[in-house]
Amino acid sequence: MNIVELIKKKRDGKVFSVDEIKYLIDQYTNGNIPDYQFSALLMAIYLIGLNTVETSALTHSMLNSGKIINLSAIKGSKIDKHSTGGIGDKTSLIIAPIVASTGICVPMISGRGLGHTGGTLDKLESIPGFRTDLSLAESMKILKRCGAVLIGQTKEIAPADKMIYALRDVTATVESIPLITASIMSKKLAEGIDGLVLDIKTGNGAFMKTQKDSIELANSLINTAKSFDKKVIAFITDMNQPLGNYIGNWLEVYESIQVLKGMVKNDLYILSIKLAGAMIFLGKKAKSLKEAEEIAKKQIDNGEAFKKFLEIVKLQGGDVNYINNPDLYPTSKFVKKVKSLNAGFICEMDTYQIGMASLELGAGRRTKEDKIDPKAGIVFYKKISDSVNQGEILCELCSDSNSKIKIAEQIIVNSIKISKKKLSIPKLVKKIIL
Amino acid sequence: MNIVELIKKKRDGKVFSVDEIKYLIDQYTNGNIPDYQFSALLMAIYLIGLNTVETSALTHSMLNSGKIINLSAIKGSKIDKHSTGGIGDKTSLIIAPIVASTGICVPMISGRGLGHTGGTLDKLESIPGFRTDLSLAESMKILKRCGAVLIGQTKEIAPADKMIYALRDVTATVESIPLITASIMSKKLAEGIDGLVLDIKTGNGAFMKTQKDSIELANSLINTAKSFDKKVIAFITDMNQPLGNYIGNWLEVYESIQVLKGMVKNDLYILSIKLAGAMIFLGKKAKSLKEAEEIAKKQIDNGEAFKKFLEIVKLQGGDVNYINNPDLYPTSKFVKKVKSLNAGFICEMDTYQIGMASLELGAGRRTKEDKIDPKAGIVFYKKISDSVNQGEILCELCSDSNSKIKIAEQIIVNSIKISKKKLSIPKLVKKIIL
Repeated sequence: MNIVELIKKKRDGKVFSVDEIKYLIDQYTNGNIPDYQFSALLMAIYLIGLNTVETSALTHSMLNSGKIINLSAIKGSKIDKHSTGGIGDKTSLIIAPIVASTGICVPMISGRGLGHTGGTLDKLESIPGFRTDLSLAESMKILKRCGAVLIGQTKEIAPADKMIYALRDVTATVESIPLITASIMSKKLAEGIDGLVLDIKTGNGAFMKTQKDSIELANSLINTAKSFDKKVIAFITDMNQPLGNYIGNWLEVYESIQVLKGMVKNDLYILSIKLAGAMIFLGKKAKSLKEAEEIAKKQIDNGEAFKKFLEIVKLQGGDVNYINNPDLYPTSKFVKKVKSLNAGFICEMDTYQIGMASLELGAGRRTKEDKIDPKAGIVFYKKISDSVNQGEILCELCSDSNSKIKIAEQIIVNSIKISKKKLSIPKLVKKIIL
Repeated sequence: MNIVELIKKKRDGKVFSVDEIKYLIDQYTNGNIPDYQFSALLMAIYLIGLNTVETSALTHSMLNSGKIINLSAIKGSKIDKHSTGGIGDKTSLIIAPIVASTGICVPMISGRGLGHTGGTLDKLESIPGFRTDLSLAESMKILKRCGAVLIGQTKEIAPADKMIYALRDVTATVESIPLITASIMSKKLAEGIDGLVLDIKTGNGAFMKTQKDSIELANSLINTAKSFDKKVIAFITDMNQPLGNYIGNWLEVYESIQVLKGMVKNDLYILSIKLAGAMIFLGKKAKSLKEAEEIAKKQIDNGEAFKKFLEIVKLQGGDVNYINNPDLYPTSKFVKKVKSLNAGFICEMDTYQIGMASLELGAGRRTKEDKIDPKAGIVFYKKISDSVNQGEILCELCSDSNSKIKIAEQIIVNSIKISKKKLSIPKLVKKIIL
């Protein structure tokens, strides 16, 4: 096989064989195909596409570039959830303890924040002492003991994905459905799971701006999961406003604690119950999605979910004092209340820009090297469809820098639109694909 | 400007501004854009395209990456010809002396052979002593003295093209009309010419397999040339069989001598007269193409063209003894006569494969590093529409290696098809675009 001929093949709209895909991934991972050839191939794939069989073969080759965790020593079902990412999306922190508390094993590998979205690892690391860089051996120990572990992608897991993602990031080839599919699924399959719940975000704060694209990605992920004999349920959920009311790393841990304690029943709670329910259903702890959701609710109400969260935090080295008494956590030097200039109803939130404002405040990263301020972020008092009076507080901006707050405030003011007419709340779960 | 955003822009089908194209070429040439980003951009350009304004801007930036030869010290018109390349295409060797002998200046920058096609530089260098690696100063001296010079691309000429072409070659982004256009035109415009005659080959031995693609390329080249205020005439000519009867470096010099001496009036002669005529017309030495072609014929008949060829060879260091007495030239150790297995008429020649057979014999290069055997090649006794008897000679294969001859023979036998019915000769000039 010849790399130039293979690039030409995809460029000309032809279909790769399974062997050709294996060759491409193996040779790139081994350093035998230079970046400048692989990036031309990635752009050809971006513009021409891969069919279901090619996507599955790509996932397979990327998965096999590394280790697949063997969870056979652990009894019961192993189920995970993956979200395509959005603003204020902290469901992992809530779902993992809910589901683990029912006896299902949750081996969760997450990522870091970049650009307008946050990352589960950064949120967890805002808890003093919390370690996400555990080795596979350490993770297995914790998983056996408490049924859940939340870690980062180790170097043993799908190294091909790590290399390819780094190249996609700098060559404008990220937003490709087959490439996203293989990237997600190669990592998730490496966890040794039996089933997966997918949360595909759609809207102005999501990667996928339209429902059509989101459904296409969902179907691609489902087809690939099924080709590996994995059970899967996909949710298409709204990202036209932040999920929950808190954005920023510790602020999101704080809100997760509120939900886990049953103190808040907002959109974040509702979606967490839906997703945890689907995991409980896939894990065969319930006969229907409805029954499974009731179990999820019960685990919050009876305190088991919060107890499990404390257990996870403790086992991963985190200081549980801050979980039991969140008010002990240090706060930002400056907190600016953003007030409404007009009276009316919130009708639009530019969620991407809200994510960028959070980044400006210090809660996010522009480049991988940027440091995060765990305290920084935004607390929303109003969301879409809420009524506001003139001068009423829309949100609070938290940062140690007053100049950063000024920049973020300008972004926020431009991101929130108020109309005279009350609009209905965007539908949270747009579609469930089984 | 940001390179990832610019790649995204083209990927998403948008149009670059002139400044954006200048930025991309300048930054790539200066080493500020790595190959892996530029190759993704090239693939996006390949698949999405560039419009006329973008192509002209790209040509402009590539041209300005190097020197533009100043020919103002030389009186009269400066006219060149460019061919997109084919098998047995040796018209440059015939045209340059014809046109220069009429007092028009012909500053010709040519390339080397790669893959199935030969290159003018390799053909000229088969003449012992002939130098194509002249400096610009040496070239100017020769040009002033005899009105023509045939050299290779110096490092001062469009260095951006050299860099980009090397990257396109290994990333399957060669066959793109806007990229081909900018590559050709940036080099040709650097010659400081007033006008250009284009020979766009079409058929099974050409880059452009269909007449539609050839016309598209011709129009792209013409539009770009006109945006630089250059006069241009394009010919779409046949490449469904080799041009002339000789393929291989010295063998093609040999056939050129025959034509220049007026001893052969085959398709090579006819096309050379057409192209030289167009150059003479653009150089204002005639009032019509027809009158210009008569002048071209006259320059062969009166011996002036051959005299000019001797002058060029001498000035560029070549041994004119071999031009005056071509039979002095060494011959290949082995000459294999390929005979027809059937009687009938030649109906098809796979010209690409014939080029590959010539490469096998030693006349071509697989990679840039390969050495060429100047004596090696093929002499055809029969071409399309010719009648053949069983056992009659189709062609002769020349090589110093018997094993190479065996491989080439197999290719040749499979490349020539004989039918019972006589077919008409493919039309040599398919279209002239003024």
